[in-house]
Amino acid sequence: MSIRIGIYGYGNLGRGIECAIKQNSDMELVAVFTRRNPEAVKINTPTAKVFSVDQAKNMTDLIDVMILCGGSATDLPEQTPFIASMFNCVDSFDTHARIPEHFANVDDRAKNSGKVAIISCGWDPGMFSLNRLYASCVLPDGEDYTFWGKGVSQGHSDAIRRIDGVLDARQYTIPVCEALESVRNGEAPVLSTRQKHTRECFVVAAEGADLARIENEIKTMPNYFADYDTTVHFISKEELDRDHSGIPHGGFVIRSGRTGKNLENKHVIEYSLKLDSNPEFTASVITAYARAAYRMNKEGMCGCKTVFDVAPSYLSVKSGEEIRKSML
Amino acid sequence: MSIRIGIYGYGNLGRGIECAIKQNSDMELVAVFTRRNPEAVKINTPTAKVFSVDQAKNMTDLIDVMILCGGSATDLPEQTPFIASMFNCVDSFDTHARIPEHFANVDDRAKNSGKVAIISCGWDPGMFSLNRLYASCVLPDGEDYTFWGKGVSQGHSDAIRRIDGVLDARQYTIPVCEALESVRNGEAPVLSTRQKHTRECFVVAAEGADLARIENEIKTMPNYFADYDTTVHFISKEELDRDHSGIPHGGFVIRSGRTGKNLENKHVIEYSLKLDSNPEFTASVITAYARAAYRMNKEGMCGCKTVFDVAPSYLSVKSGEEIRKSML
Repeated sequence: MSIRIGIYGYGNLGRGIECAIKQNSDMELVAVFTRRNPEAVKINTPTAKVFSVDQAKNMTDLIDVMILCGGSATDLPEQTPFIASMFNCVDSFDTHARIPEHFANVDDRAKNSGKVAIISCGWDPGMFSLNRLYASCVLPDGEDYTFWGKGVSQGHSDAIRRIDGVLDARQYTIPVCEALESVRNGEAPVLSTRQKHTRECFVVAAEGADLARIENEIKTMPNYFADYDTTVHFISKEELDRDHSGIPHGGFVIRSGRTGKNLENKHVIEYSLKLDSNPEFTASVITAYARAAYRMNKEGMCGCKTVFDVAPSYLSVKSGEEIRKSML
Repeated sequence: MSIRIGIYGYGNLGRGIECAIKQNSDMELVAVFTRRNPEAVKINTPTAKVFSVDQAKNMTDLIDVMILCGGSATDLPEQTPFIASMFNCVDSFDTHARIPEHFANVDDRAKNSGKVAIISCGWDPGMFSLNRLYASCVLPDGEDYTFWGKGVSQGHSDAIRRIDGVLDARQYTIPVCEALESVRNGEAPVLSTRQKHTRECFVVAAEGADLARIENEIKTMPNYFADYDTTVHFISKEELDRDHSGIPHGGFVIRSGRTGKNLENKHVIEYSLKLDSNPEFTASVITAYARAAYRMNKEGMCGCKTVFDVAPSYLSVKSGEEIRKSML
């Protein structure tokens, strides 16, 4: 029997989950839940149905794992505890500072309901977090580095769009090559914000807008751009749509460390991602963890979990015997 | 209270474990067990003692985790089941074809004794295996590649030393750059053995030996060299000792895969290691898993485990709360 999945929220991430489910032979999409009018939401899985979010509570027997596809700012802090009180579930909560609070809220509900809720799943937090943890455990004397990009930052693109005279914009975060190379060589550099990443902006301005003012507003924007070397290109809407419509991303987690009697031997551990579609890759990670949530709950576990708490074997559709034989 | 560690076998790996324990504040080396005369074995930890392997059975109350540092060919198939019948333990068994049999033998004993035995720990098998598993679960439609090197292969160096007229030798396994680049670009190439790695040999020949014959014997040696592009350099013993005395290694695990409605988006996941000392890094991984064995057993688990069965949080000296806060 398949693992029956529900998708709660149907934006970019939800559509990515729908695609990912089709790549996992032991899973089946049963229902999509939306806050919009269900009639107006068209999905790509003929065997699944669209419901209003209000109907989820009546479907606890029909869904094994609910995948939450809302945003971290306001949706997930409400939705994940609510859903965890009825379903095994997985979310991609990524507001770092609020993770302890979110964990506590979800843990409480999931323990009461006897369900497994895996939070903060995706690639960062998620696969990058795992690599930070593994590397720091293996090389206790060392330094950690995370670089992001080259990739589109939605938040930074939005920040540019809010500037007067800007019609549309796309911002790329780019790791600084020299910094990456120094880290890779085990030189353990101390790097400022400016030395780690640059920001490149493609901006469509309104006709007659003051381009110098827009460029200056971008480059001096606190938190978003002021601490970075930022370049701004003004392009046409056609160019933006033609050359910058993808949502690529990626990055690097690197730890360099030392071992030996006098710590004389250097080691470098590097993990990197190069992603054509940020939301689809995030969805693929979440979908693998949905399998883990289902299996861990079957074994009697409950409560809030993160990627740190999930033994890797739970992620695979294959048996322990098979993965030992083919992948160990 | 510290986790009390025993080292069973004191060669390169055992000495690496001894160093690694000093880097983990929650661990303490209690005893080293040797098949040699204990009096003749000098260790670097004043607070630990050297015993004969026969004495291990009398020390089950004094050691929390025994780390097995023997070889995979003949030592570990005997030693790990024997030790697992008395102690939590970790080994680095790496004879791939015999892992299922070794797992079954160890599982049986560890279940009887109520101990946790983690086998096949290190970087390959070990960290590379983990990355093959995570990547294949996250990208079910894709291809896996493992490249080794640049690094010293002990087995290949030994094979050269057995040739008549060879006094000493060092062999490096080197990944082919073009193959690596093609894989990184997500081109999913089909690669022959020859297309993935080259082999470079540094050989010290006896005076008057027939160098052409030695070179030919190396290059045509079945299994070891015949399927590779191999280069042979004859050098002096002084040059070998000066330039090739280290034991560096490393490699790459790369998976490229596709997602999306029509699998139109490509993704590349890459994990790589660059190690100054192969045995010391292996030792560092094993030491982290010793902590996991201890903790899992404290929670009531027993039996044979691999890296696939260990939730990452068990590896860290930090609490769940701390790792969620600092690394998620």
